[in-house]
Parts: sequence; structure tokens; C-alpha cells
Amino acid sequence: MMVFRASAGITSSWDHFGFSVVDGVATVTFSRPDKLNALTFDVYADLRDLILELPHRGDARVLVITGEGRGFCSGGDVEEIIGELQKMEPAELLEFTRMTGAVVKALRECPLPVIAAVNGIAAGAGSVIALASDFRLLAPSASFAFLFTKVGLAGADMGSAYLLPRLVGLGRATELLLLGDKVDAATALGIGLATKVVEDLPAEAAALATRLASGPALAYSTTKVLLTRELDMDLGSSIELEAITQALLMKSEDHAEFYAAWTAGRKPRWTGR
Amino acid sequence: MMVFRASAGITSSWDHFGFSVVDGVATVTFSRPDKLNALTFDVYADLRDLILELPHRGDARVLVITGEGRGFCSGGDVEEIIGELQKMEPAELLEFTRMTGAVVKALRECPLPVIAAVNGIAAGAGSVIALASDFRLLAPSASFAFLFTKVGLAGADMGSAYLLPRLVGLGRATELLLLGDKVDAATALGIGLATKVVEDLPAEAAALATRLASGPALAYSTTKVLLTRELDMDLGSSIELEAITQALLMKSEDHAEFYAAWTAGRKPRWTGR
Amino acid sequence: MMVFRASAGITSSWDHFGFSVVDGVATVTFSRPDKLNALTFDVYADLRDLILELPHRGDARVLVITGEGRGFCSGGDVEEIIGELQKMEPAELLEFTRMTGAVVKALRECPLPVIAAVNGIAAGAGSVIALASDFRLLAPSASFAFLFTKVGLAGADMGSAYLLPRLVGLGRATELLLLGDKVDAATALGIGLATKVVEDLPAEAAALATRLASGPALAYSTTKVLLTRELDMDLGSSIELEAITQALLMKSEDHAEFYAAWTAGRKPRWTGR
Repeated sequence: MMVFRASAGITSSWDHFGFSVVDGVATVTFSRPDKLNALTFDVYADLRDLILELPHRGDARVLVITGEGRGFCSGGDVEEIIGELQKMEPAELLEFTRMTGAVVKALRECPLPVIAAVNGIAAGAGSVIALASDFRLLAPSASFAFLFTKVGLAGADMGSAYLLPRLVGLGRATELLLLGDKVDAATALGIGLATKVVEDLPAEAAALATRLASGPALAYSTTKVLLTRELDMDLGSSIELEAITQALLMKSEDHAEFYAAWTAGRKPRWTGR
Repeated sequence: MMVFRASAGITSSWDHFGFSVVDGVATVTFSRPDKLNALTFDVYADLRDLILELPHRGDARVLVITGEGRGFCSGGDVEEIIGELQKMEPAELLEFTRMTGAVVKALRECPLPVIAAVNGIAAGAGSVIALASDFRLLAPSASFAFLFTKVGLAGADMGSAYLLPRLVGLGRATELLLLGDKVDAATALGIGLATKVVEDLPAEAAALATRLASGPALAYSTTKVLLTRELDMDLGSSIELEAITQALLMKSEDHAEFYAAWTAGRKPRWTGR
Repeated sequence: MMVFRASAGITSSWDHFGFSVVDGVATVTFSRPDKLNALTFDVYADLRDLILELPHRGDARVLVITGEGRGFCSGGDVEEIIGELQKMEPAELLEFTRMTGAVVKALRECPLPVIAAVNGIAAGAGSVIALASDFRLLAPSASFAFLFTKVGLAGADMGSAYLLPRLVGLGRATELLLLGDKVDAATALGIGLATKVVEDLPAEAAALATRLASGPALAYSTTKVLLTRELDMDLGSSIELEAITQALLMKSEDHAEFYAAWTAGRKPRWTGR
């Protein structure tokens, strides 16, 4: 992936969650296990900034998001976020809600595939972060809870009322967002909210991440970006966008490599170009 | 809920279906059981007007729609509606079809959650009224039949070709609307058309209605309204709408009450403000 | 169906697939069984032109697409298409990708219902042709594979990134289009990608085609067209479009025939007018 970045530097240290990049696989690990990885203002800010910066690093082809300990992410910390929000004025509240929404927007617009490795409960904002990812691999003990109405807030938070109906249909999304009840892993799988429920989550998440990081990156990337965009486009425009995109991809090294490999009877060696 | 209503009065009597409001739960009961609650022109008109008026009454927080006897609602009465339509000119027919569509538009735009307690067959317009509700609780004997093509009409009626694909996907919606065949309760549940199939429908519908009527009304209401609106909005605009909405909700009594209750280790007492 | 066609003739012979019209049922049979019915440039061109011409023939009320031999359609031929594309410049590539997209656009906009009788593997462009059909009847041995990324191309091809999320939800569509793995018939049925899996595919496809060809053609046609259009319309406009459409249908012969038949206690005789 070409990197166009001039004066703005690359952040050297992300202090509010674990972060690593190994063999093209970037991993964010929520790291407040004693709080089921409840989010703080700083975690939100770092997530927003990291996801925007990630494609500019040049070393990452896929992002994995997971949690340390029993939980994936229990959403905004009641003390450190909800308590503080009580003291804020509208302009400040809007700065906060726009920041949380920016995390989801960045996830959906990120040209890299994103895997949520949901190791336990994903609640509130935690459930929306998983929802905005491209793949949701769930441990059998994982669950979702879009529990916003249970704290007196709108079930429409960070784009959940846009995304969830587009994954599970309007009827099921209405039930999940209005009532905010817990959804276990098997139910999530049945309705299309989970990609897969797996016994060995770290191994399966690593296998999928490796597959994506070592595959035809431009093909994956354009597929994801067009999936995001065409939710908001009409049939004719979508077909035109796909025609132009595919013509570009037909000039790519990876497509030529497929044909060369097929002709030679060997496996393709993807470069992502 | 604040009521802004000046000169226009509140209708004192709805004569074409049963109607009551008890403890915040408004209930419409279709009441032509010998005709499986087939609709007449007057039932349509009353439905349209009642649903628009309901939020202005100030006494209702949730609407339940159900039927008396064996059926939920068998759609337009063949004698009293289809027979009459045969005699009408285009301008009159359009008045009729616009009225039926206005029922669905009112249901979707109503700021109150709507529960369809489907006690038996929901056919034609009856199936679309259930489809436009937020929750569909089904008795085991309940069924849907979008039977419009079987009477020589378009399966696209009262918004069904807009709504059904957004609940069950385009493939299944195409099958249901083109063929018009009966869908039993188990199938409806499997494809996301039913929220739940329950043995004791009146009790379960009452429990859900009570939960919604006694909960954080503004949170429920904004969730429903944003679900409706964001079907027609793009990702970025939806995230912005949710950010602004949530900032407003963060100034609500109910959200403050959640935090106070949580701090005190007690259950919240919702006021809906 | 009225035919408005003046100077332009009707194509007398389609040379790149089998084609017949019997009792209102048009059938396209991919006929390169030794290549699992891989597509060539000529097959694409003929498909695009035939589907646009079909409603103008006046003899067809439904289109069935199926394959000869073990496969339905394995997509673009690696030798005859991918090999040739390697030699092309951007302007030529775009002509090709626009032609393939035009096949899907024609299928979705065709006023006739389209049945894909998927007798075996539907891969690449073959899977998108089935996806763009209205009904997908699958033999138990049938499968889908949106394998574009496996040849280094975007999973968004011929409108697949627009259509698939609208059938199976964004989560499942992301998995299928990014990874390109095979989807067997049972899985396709479970997620709403298949209409039905049937033991005797030719008999079931013929029965459905006959039902559609002998039924109320205008009712079927408007239902399909509105399903296509309302994916790209908002709630209020969709309800208005359905109101106007239904008012028109209420003046149709078929709707009058339904009422006459019902009154007389006999079955309706549909004319499609």
C-alpha cells in the first residue's frame, strides 16, 4: 500500500489500549480487564485517531480488535464517562457523541478489513464497535447487549440504528435496540450478527487475520469499501462504480499474477498491488 | 410527553374498532370477528386518524393492535371494499389507496412503539399493518399472507415492497409478495418477520406493553424514530443524527435518574422525560 | 403485454446459449457443459441483448435461466476472458465490465419475473446472475461461490456488493464477498440466498414458471418492478408509488376478473391485462 503522508507524523505510542503490528496484522487489545474493558474518554480518542492513521502506516493490512480478560468491551465506563457527562453542557456533550460516532465512521470507511474477536460480553459502545467491524468471530461465551435504553439513552448510538437493520433486518434490530436485552452467541449467529462462533477464538482470529494479510490486499480493500458505499447508493450507480473499480483491478499486479499462476499450474503469490 | 394541541379536539369515540387506554397502553382491537376482522373504508379512516392523534392525547406510551376472535385482520373486505372499488374512477381509487398507505406511514412515523399481537391470520392489508408495527408477537396459529397478487393486484401495497425486503431480505420478500402464499408462525419467526411466537399471546403482549409503557419513554421513542428515518439516510448523516440525538438524551431526566439510581444501588424510576 | 416496437427487429437466433419460448415461459440454457458453462464475451453480449429484448417479443411472461450438465455457470472463462483481458487497455476493460454490469441491470429492471434454476455450481459471474434473478431454485448439489478475490479482483462485481447485502445482510455479504468461499445449498437456504432447495429441479422450476406464466402478469410485473425500485426510494415516496400503482391495477381486467370469479364462486381466468 502506497503511503501519502507529509508533515503529520505517525503516533509512536498508543497508551490506552494494547497495540501491535506483526506480519501485516494490527491488533488493538482493550486492556482494562478488571472493568470488562470499559471505555474511557482517552480510549475513544485513541481509537478514532488510530483507525484513521492505520492505513497511513504502511505496515498493516488487517485490523483485529479484541479484549483482555473475560470481557470484550462493556461500553462507556459508568463512573469515568456517565458521571462526567452529567456535568457537561450541550456543546461538550455533542463533542463527546461526535467522537464516539467518529470511531464507527472510521471503522466503516477504513480500507482495511477489520475483525472483531469477541472474547466475552460486548455491551453498549462495545457492541457497536463489534457491529461496525467486518467480521465478528465470537467465543461461545461472547454476547451482545445494545443496552442504551437501559441507561435512559437512545438505542440509536454511534450509528447502531443505521447498521443493525442492515445486518439483521428492521424487525430484529428494533427488538435489540429498543429493549437492549442480551443476545447470546448462538442467537447472534442465527440472525447474522456473528460471522462465526468458535471454540478457539485466538487461533481462529489469527488464522483469518493471516489469510487476509497475506492475500490480494487491493481486492479485499476495494470489496470492503464498496460494500460500505453501496449501502447508500442506487442500483445503477452501484453497477457503474463496480464496473470502473473492476476495470482498475484488471490492471493490477495481483490479477495478472492469478492468470500467470493459473497458466503455470501453481499458487498465486499476492503482493497486494 | 408534552402535548401541543390547540383548536383541534381529541376524538371522543372510535366507532369502527375497540379502543382503550389503560396505564399508558393504548389498544386497538379489530372487532368484526365473524369476518376475520376484514377492513372497511371506515376502519381504514379511523386507523389513519387515530394513529396520528395518539401522541397528542398525552395518555398513551405504547400502542397494541390485535383482533377479536380467530383472526387478526383478513384485509380489505371483498364485498364492502373490492366490490365498491369496481365502481370507482381513478381519482377516487387514488384517494382510497392513499388512505391505506397513510395508515402505514402513520405507524412507521408514530413516536410510540407499536406492538402487533397477531392472534390469527394476518392477510392482505392486515399483514401490512402487522409489518409496519415495531413488534410482532404471534400466537402459534397466526400466519401472514401478502395475498395481493391472488386478487389480481400488485404485491406492492401500502409500502409492503419497501418494508418487507428491509425485514427479511430481497429474496424472501420477492417470494412472499409475488406469490402471496401463506407464511406460518414458525416460518415467520425463522426469517425475522415475527419477533416472537408465544403460547399465551394476551399475557405476553400485555407484559411487553407494560414494560414499554413504564420504561424510559423518550429513549424508546427516539430509538424507534431514528430506526425509521435511518433506513432512508446515509452512514455519515445517520451518525451525525445519532450524535445530536444522544447529546439531547444525555440532558434528560431519565439518564440522570439512571446515574443517580446506579450510584445509590437502586432501580431507576423512569419518568419518560 | 402490449408491444411497442417499430423499426428495430426481433433477434431471430441466439447463438451462444439455448433459447426457447413455450407457453409464455422463456428459457435460457447455458450450453458449454464441458466448461461448467463458463461465460464468453459472446454469451455476455447475448444475455444483455436478450433480456432487454424479451419484454418486446410479446410471447414471454417469465424467464428461466439454467445450465446444461453438472454446472449452472462457472463465471468468466479463464482462457477466453481472463486471458484476453490481460491484453486490454483501460477503455476496453471498462467496455467489458460495463457489459457484464448491464446484464445484472437488465435482469433487475426486466418487468418479467426471472427464475434461476441452479442445477450445480454458480461461481463468479454465474453467482451474480443467479443473485440478480427473482427466484433461486437450487438442486441439492448446487452451490454459490463469489470467488472474485480468489482471482485478485474485487468481490464487488456486476452489482454484487449492492445486491448481496440486501438479500442476506451486510455481515454475511461481507464474509461471502471478501473471502469468496463456496456456499452450499443448505447454507444458501438458511441465509435467504436460495428461495428453495428441491430434489427434482426441472419439475419444480417448470411448475413455478407455469404458475407465473399463467397468473396475473401485470400484478406480478408491477410487484417485481416496485421491489427493484423501492430499494432505492424512501418510505414516503414508496408509499405514494404503491398508492398510484395500486389505483392503476384496480382498473385492470384481472382485478375485475377476480371479483367476478369470487362472486360467481369460480376460479379467476387471468389475462394479464
